[in-house]
Amino acid sequence: MPQDSAKIALSDLKAYFQKNKEAILNDYYTFLRFQSISTDPAYSQQVLACAEWVRDYLKESGFDVEYWQTSGYPVIFASHLKAGKDKPTLLIYNHYDVQPVDPLSEWTTPPFEPSLRNGEVYARGAQDNKGQCFYTMLALRHLLKHYKTLPVNIKLCIEGEEEFGSAGIAGILPQKKEALKADYLAIVDVGIRGPELPSITLGTRGMVSMDVEVEGSLSDMHSGCHGGLAYNPIRALSEILSSLRDSKGKITISGFYEDVIGLSDEEKELICWEFDEETYVEQFGISPTGGETNLTPSERAWLRPTLEINGMWGGYIGQGFKTVIPSKAYAKISCRLVPNQDPKKIGALVANAMEQKAPPGIKVKVNVHSGGGVAVRAKADSKIVEAFAKAYTEVFDKPCEYIYEGATIPIAPALSHASQSEVVLVGLGLIDDQIHAPNEHFGVDRIERGFFIIVRTIENLGVFSPS
Amino acid sequence: MPQDSAKIALSDLKAYFQKNKEAILNDYYTFLRFQSISTDPAYSQQVLACAEWVRDYLKESGFDVEYWQTSGYPVIFASHLKAGKDKPTLLIYNHYDVQPVDPLSEWTTPPFEPSLRNGEVYARGAQDNKGQCFYTMLALRHLLKHYKTLPVNIKLCIEGEEEFGSAGIAGILPQKKEALKADYLAIVDVGIRGPELPSITLGTRGMVSMDVEVEGSLSDMHSGCHGGLAYNPIRALSEILSSLRDSKGKITISGFYEDVIGLSDEEKELICWEFDEETYVEQFGISPTGGETNLTPSERAWLRPTLEINGMWGGYIGQGFKTVIPSKAYAKISCRLVPNQDPKKIGALVANAMEQKAPPGIKVKVNVHSGGGVAVRAKADSKIVEAFAKAYTEVFDKPCEYIYEGATIPIAPALSHASQSEVVLVGLGLIDDQIHAPNEHFGVDRIERGFFIIVRTIENLGVFSPS
Repeated sequence: MPQDSAKIALSDLKAYFQKNKEAILNDYYTFLRFQSISTDPAYSQQVLACAEWVRDYLKESGFDVEYWQTSGYPVIFASHLKAGKDKPTLLIYNHYDVQPVDPLSEWTTPPFEPSLRNGEVYARGAQDNKGQCFYTMLALRHLLKHYKTLPVNIKLCIEGEEEFGSAGIAGILPQKKEALKADYLAIVDVGIRGPELPSITLGTRGMVSMDVEVEGSLSDMHSGCHGGLAYNPIRALSEILSSLRDSKGKITISGFYEDVIGLSDEEKELICWEFDEETYVEQFGISPTGGETNLTPSERAWLRPTLEINGMWGGYIGQGFKTVIPSKAYAKISCRLVPNQDPKKIGALVANAMEQKAPPGIKVKVNVHSGGGVAVRAKADSKIVEAFAKAYTEVFDKPCEYIYEGATIPIAPALSHASQSEVVLVGLGLIDDQIHAPNEHFGVDRIERGFFIIVRTIENLGVFSPS
Repeated sequence: MPQDSAKIALSDLKAYFQKNKEAILNDYYTFLRFQSISTDPAYSQQVLACAEWVRDYLKESGFDVEYWQTSGYPVIFASHLKAGKDKPTLLIYNHYDVQPVDPLSEWTTPPFEPSLRNGEVYARGAQDNKGQCFYTMLALRHLLKHYKTLPVNIKLCIEGEEEFGSAGIAGILPQKKEALKADYLAIVDVGIRGPELPSITLGTRGMVSMDVEVEGSLSDMHSGCHGGLAYNPIRALSEILSSLRDSKGKITISGFYEDVIGLSDEEKELICWEFDEETYVEQFGISPTGGETNLTPSERAWLRPTLEINGMWGGYIGQGFKTVIPSKAYAKISCRLVPNQDPKKIGALVANAMEQKAPPGIKVKVNVHSGGGVAVRAKADSKIVEAFAKAYTEVFDKPCEYIYEGATIPIAPALSHASQSEVVLVGLGLIDDQIHAPNEHFGVDRIERGFFIIVRTIENLGVFSPS
């Protein structure tokens, strides 16, 4: 297996990518065209067709591929275990499902017809996660072609319900522990700080979500006859939601921060805390004024829990006007969680706080969703972190930094636990890739660099023995 | 013209109604079947067809009928002016348009297929205002049939945009002053305190409405990546709306109550303040806890301005869940106004207060609608009030009470002004008729009593000379 001198030269990898660019992009576009929206049953045939395409791609690359049935969409499990027992086993995680596309009218080009503009591919899933999944598969195919085998034992686990809570894979983890067993787990589903700023993610936030229903009168009422009499449930919901935060943006629910664990001094040292406010405003049209006002943006985005209103509605929301006091108002709420916070506990705290705050005459019902997940933390001194850091540094020709991620990979903590592996979170996403939003996009240069990084990380890892 | 002894006996009116009930209800149902929703252009043909039916009904009854074109739907103006100059002129106002029907799924039977159940006719407009318009027209037809003429001069003004702000009729009032000129104006579009509680309405509230748009980021964002950074516009809107009211339900906007004029001691004496909380809870499933907590329910519903959220929405409101921080959030707001409050002034106050409260990074835009209208007050000692009170007392065999109404008849103050007439508000609506809501209904007994009351009021008025 390759020592540093024996690795594929970066120039050769570049030449290969450029020479085969059209065929590579063709495969990528094919992957993107599947409307694999996992949350909406209307797309189930498209999700399944997408899974089959991934399976076939990996089979053709030389992997042993299994189709793991779940309560929902299948998990594709691919393995290549010929490196030997003296070599480590790396488990890689991706997903082939994508978020819904609404509001559709805000897309410049249709979400499932990939469009290349200024070096960026626009499509739903272009980054999250098909783009990152694709360069991973491309790298593995290239390594197998080059070496006829792989420098380490590789297991790939690609699920189809990441955007829908990962219930399917979560349900089969207990019976798949042996198959998943690995030394390291790389979650290839996150990003870097900037286009030229290599970074590795040492943790993500967890999440718990819930639906809220606020009920007033038995049916909608006339706001003239009943205005001043009936308590409007939209008003009640607004008041309840507002009361959950103080004037400094801190959540006022008793116990909400109780279990939060901060960082050690070593971790604080290691992390890059830089946050470019000016660029943020340019990119998103909004200054970073959310969250707790006494903390820095990076602290707020990575290390503090949130309580976000993802949707709210009640009354007449059509064209024109209707003078109504509605019977009901609704909200969808999610909390991002940080280390040591338990989704069930936080969900119950928030639900209880909202229900307790119902004004007289108003009923508040909160349905906390199962699933969610705890926050993830990587060991900064793990061999897998070392192997990736070396690869990022080489490919970007710049020292790799360490960051956290505010988003959630619901299955990451359970997968790390089931496979008994040390986790790391990597990827080449940028904060303005518009994932989960209209006009999601991913650069062809990042497909290329992602390909380089996966190739080199696996080569790097080949020099280590299992820990 | 008839003195008391010469009036049609109540028993004869009852016998006539019972004998001709089927034909009467047939006409009523025909009127209800027109889908005359004025706010939605999709129904314009139905609104116009409805206007034609009303015109023809009045022509056949013996009225001179004019079709007044407006910027929107036509006003039907019918007159019968043969009582002579020594007799007063009564202008009667109704409307033939209705509210939208959504949520359609909550209707037990289709809104435009009248259904008779337990003596109540269920249909959109069954009460508001086709039911009340219909018994008015029925009474006039019967009077003309019986006397061959009418005891007073009658003008009928039936518009088609009451549920859409009455812009059409408002626009032509200046040029129709002479045609509309009357001694008295009866707005037949309100209700009584209870099924067996005769009452006359001495005033309504006014109204001003507005649309609110709250904008944060340029497009929807991922609530994991941006949670703690971006200020969620739904949160901003909730906070702004909540901040407009203190803990006792009073609006906190500076100047909001400045121009409010209360009642004189005489008016306070005259009014029936009773409010049956138990029945309210039974009927609507909610206790009357809205409004200012230091006031009685009747005061809150009649004499105090409101600020009501008629609709609010933002973020993901479909099935399932989407972890999004939306770019925008919206609300539809209306204020009911009391005497001496100016819709323009209050609209500007509310808009300004909301815009001022925008947190950093958030833009708030409020669009105050033109139209609306001021509150209306009747003179308690007017001859028209006397004539109606006598009729109600006779028909219900119980002393008539005096009340106010919390809802708004947008055109009432302008129509009273243009016609130089003394206004009164009457009708037989009940608070649980579900007007503007699913399953609107009106009792056949109230069609009958409304018919009696209009007949008798016109006979009563016939004994008066113009003031």
